[in-house]
Amino acid sequence: MTAFALGEIVAAIGGELIGDPGLRIARIGPLETATPATITFLANLRYRSQLATTQAGCVIVGPEMRDAAVARGATLVAPDPYLHFALLTQWWAARTRAVPAPGIHASAVVDPAARIDASASIGALAVIEAGADIGAGSVIGAQCFIGTGARIGAGTRFAAHVSFGAGCSIGERGIVHSGAVIGADGFGFAPHQGTWVKIEQLGGVRIGNDVEIGANTCIDRGALGDTVLEDGVKLDNLVQVGHNTRIGAHSAAAGCVGISGSVDIGARCTLAGAVGVAGHLSIADDVHVTAFTAVSRSLRQAGVYSGMFPIDDNATWEKNAATLRQLYSLRNRLRALEGKSP
Amino acid sequence: MTAFALGEIVAAIGGELIGDPGLRIARIGPLETATPATITFLANLRYRSQLATTQAGCVIVGPEMRDAAVARGATLVAPDPYLHFALLTQWWAARTRAVPAPGIHASAVVDPAARIDASASIGALAVIEAGADIGAGSVIGAQCFIGTGARIGAGTRFAAHVSFGAGCSIGERGIVHSGAVIGADGFGFAPHQGTWVKIEQLGGVRIGNDVEIGANTCIDRGALGDTVLEDGVKLDNLVQVGHNTRIGAHSAAAGCVGISGSVDIGARCTLAGAVGVAGHLSIADDVHVTAFTAVSRSLRQAGVYSGMFPIDDNATWEKNAATLRQLYSLRNRLRALEGKSP
Amino acid sequence: MTAFALGEIVAAIGGELIGDPGLRIARIGPLETATPATITFLANLRYRSQLATTQAGCVIVGPEMRDAAVARGATLVAPDPYLHFALLTQWWAARTRAVPAPGIHASAVVDPAARIDASASIGALAVIEAGADIGAGSVIGAQCFIGTGARIGAGTRFAAHVSFGAGCSIGERGIVHSGAVIGADGFGFAPHQGTWVKIEQLGGVRIGNDVEIGANTCIDRGALGDTVLEDGVKLDNLVQVGHNTRIGAHSAAAGCVGISGSVDIGARCTLAGAVGVAGHLSIADDVHVTAFTAVSRSLRQAGVYSGMFPIDDNATWEKNAATLRQLYSLRNRLRALEGKSP
Repeated sequence: MTAFALGEIVAAIGGELIGDPGLRIARIGPLETATPATITFLANLRYRSQLATTQAGCVIVGPEMRDAAVARGATLVAPDPYLHFALLTQWWAARTRAVPAPGIHASAVVDPAARIDASASIGALAVIEAGADIGAGSVIGAQCFIGTGARIGAGTRFAAHVSFGAGCSIGERGIVHSGAVIGADGFGFAPHQGTWVKIEQLGGVRIGNDVEIGANTCIDRGALGDTVLEDGVKLDNLVQVGHNTRIGAHSAAAGCVGISGSVDIGARCTLAGAVGVAGHLSIADDVHVTAFTAVSRSLRQAGVYSGMFPIDDNATWEKNAATLRQLYSLRNRLRALEGKSP
Repeated sequence: MTAFALGEIVAAIGGELIGDPGLRIARIGPLETATPATITFLANLRYRSQLATTQAGCVIVGPEMRDAAVARGATLVAPDPYLHFALLTQWWAARTRAVPAPGIHASAVVDPAARIDASASIGALAVIEAGADIGAGSVIGAQCFIGTGARIGAGTRFAAHVSFGAGCSIGERGIVHSGAVIGADGFGFAPHQGTWVKIEQLGGVRIGNDVEIGANTCIDRGALGDTVLEDGVKLDNLVQVGHNTRIGAHSAAAGCVGISGSVDIGARCTLAGAVGVAGHLSIADDVHVTAFTAVSRSLRQAGVYSGMFPIDDNATWEKNAATLRQLYSLRNRLRALEGKSP
Repeated sequence: MTAFALGEIVAAIGGELIGDPGLRIARIGPLETATPATITFLANLRYRSQLATTQAGCVIVGPEMRDAAVARGATLVAPDPYLHFALLTQWWAARTRAVPAPGIHASAVVDPAARIDASASIGALAVIEAGADIGAGSVIGAQCFIGTGARIGAGTRFAAHVSFGAGCSIGERGIVHSGAVIGADGFGFAPHQGTWVKIEQLGGVRIGNDVEIGANTCIDRGALGDTVLEDGVKLDNLVQVGHNTRIGAHSAAAGCVGISGSVDIGARCTLAGAVGVAGHLSIADDVHVTAFTAVSRSLRQAGVYSGMFPIDDNATWEKNAATLRQLYSLRNRLRALEGKSP
């Protein structure tokens, strides 16, 4: 099994080590299931009681937990233990995961008019069309589709089965997971005598640097201009982004979020799971929407917004839901009792 | 850059041109960012104030805006400017997009017992099984899967990575986007002693003409009979259609809509984003359901229906949501004040 | 057309036949559209009136309907007619569907260091990486991706276009539908100075026996440990399962369900369509959540839970929704009328 000296880890990710740098670390794990060959972390002080009993070889803690941690064994002190844990996972992955070899797999179908950097890796049975541009060190997974004229920045990695449409672009160090579809047509039709007349979607999708896109997430191309994801945006799985929407830098959307078309979302926003955003709205910087909320109006102030029906046992919910359907008349009856006209 | 004479455009899409037919048009764009080489449109009179300031070479307007538009420059008058814009995008796309060449890509895996029209185009690394029938002028994108005995009508286009299951059919002029899965098993099980016994799904999916299906949308095959999408249905991305459901002609569903099994939806309905429809319900013709609404009963009258929890700032929502859980008892207390028994 | 003697069917699936075993059965169908060559079933007594008028050749019924059924023609009596119908569909599918031949399609890209059982079938243009292990009788559909070291148990079937990530495993007799993505990265980041630092997802996905996974459903790999689906779990299409979540044996989730990370779900639970579950919650055994409910707290007791906004005509909904935003103040006004302080 792979194992590293604790000192080697600390040399790479930093922090102050109190303990034996020669200790062998074979895994990263949570406090409660840690073994003496495990490095773990304490980021949420709610779990501080686990510190005394964990069997972990080394614990990453913040300065305020230094003494308690040192009392039990090897300790790595860092200003932000959760961030330090993230850096540790990155170092670990780089050391333990196979890196795809540069070059084009013999089974891939690559148009002669595509430009593939010599250090890029193109997986088995990928299709790369004319004019596509694949940057240095990027990885295109097996069975991906890269359309005509698409541009993939340096160091960006696509898992298997990604569809990346014609004329779309993504910057550097991006990650796109399997089944994501970037650049399908936006949903646009003109109504005409009871039928729908297609509006051809002539724009593209423009994605910045350091963007991660989850599995089976869809980002539609713009109708005229582009759909835009700015730097550092993170989208989870099964997210829908409609045409001509802009998502500001470092905003994030959790699983099953649906964002309609022509939405303008600011920077550093978070949309929790299953949030929906109606079309043509604006959301300010630093807006946070809690799970399962339908954003039906623009949110012009930073803050936290919610709109979820509270869960209850079914019998209680039934009574409350039935009453909810009478709520406006209840309000009028209350006004009558108060001596006001409805 | 591609550019067309304005007169050539008008000759193709119709309308009354007031202005120089020799004007060169290089792009279609919105009013506010238009350049002298841009053709744009004014369909929503809310934006009429932009007419005076736009730099557009030509504006498509309705008859009521004719004078105001002519006062500023070249004008194309049409009875329905938004429809005219749609026709313009179609003409533009036909002139500017590469059309896949007819024929079967050398890397595709096509069963000898499949029938492929000579004018159809089969993309790289597509798989077409025995008995499949691909109509004239249709386009099967790269890496698509077409199952045994499936039928694709003339002029229908599949983007890359579409799965189209055995025995399913789609009519003419359809569009299916990447990652769509047509013909996976419906979700059917018989409960038995705390476990689930699979009901094999023996039906198919039958899709009419002029249907568009979005990216990563799923349409399950029927248990016994077929799941049916009638002519002109439009489905956005990440939509789920359960087994044995029928969607009537020219109905449309926006992103993230979930339709359960054995639902019967009429013609010309619209389901806005993230609407859900419970199983075994009927929805009349011309029903419109607003976003994020759960349709939990049949809707037997045309009309507009809603059921979304209103968004609020989190603190206000928390108080209202907590009170909502007491709503039935509040109603009883109100009745007591009114002198009625609960 | 395929047709079977009724006696042959009964010999295979059991039950007591009253009627001619030589009757030819050409299809399985519902009561109302049955023909004399159709076998059908009556499981829900709500449809008992159809028994007198159906043209079916044979009807499967429970003991309580025996006399009524026999009075109209051939009858198959079984203790649980719906279960018997399920068994019938399985027998029928096994008799009428082509079974993929064992062996590796010439166009598949299989690493020499993968282990493929000789009785397994690997479809056209599938990619199987080093160290993958494909069990006896399993079927890997066309264009599937099986990552390094993944394990697929005996008799498990993947439709086309499945992505099954490195190091993930599934047991025996599983079914995975097209577009499913097993083993994409969980959604984990450490916030840092207004940006997100990726937490590499080092765990896997571990799936038991007899599990079915719907089209375009996503199951993320764990951050440190594994995401777990126990035996008999059934997931419909477009379901999201976050990292490190456990779904207990024989639990089922309908279409568009979203389950966050680190959720612990018990056995025999059902989550109806579009249910959402927030992160880090526990759900007891035998919990049933009705459609469109957001599970925002742990559910520690078996039972039925709900939280859906009731649908109404749009005008009524608007008045009630507007009032809902005042609900807490209404409650205070009611308290005032009651002579209490708010």
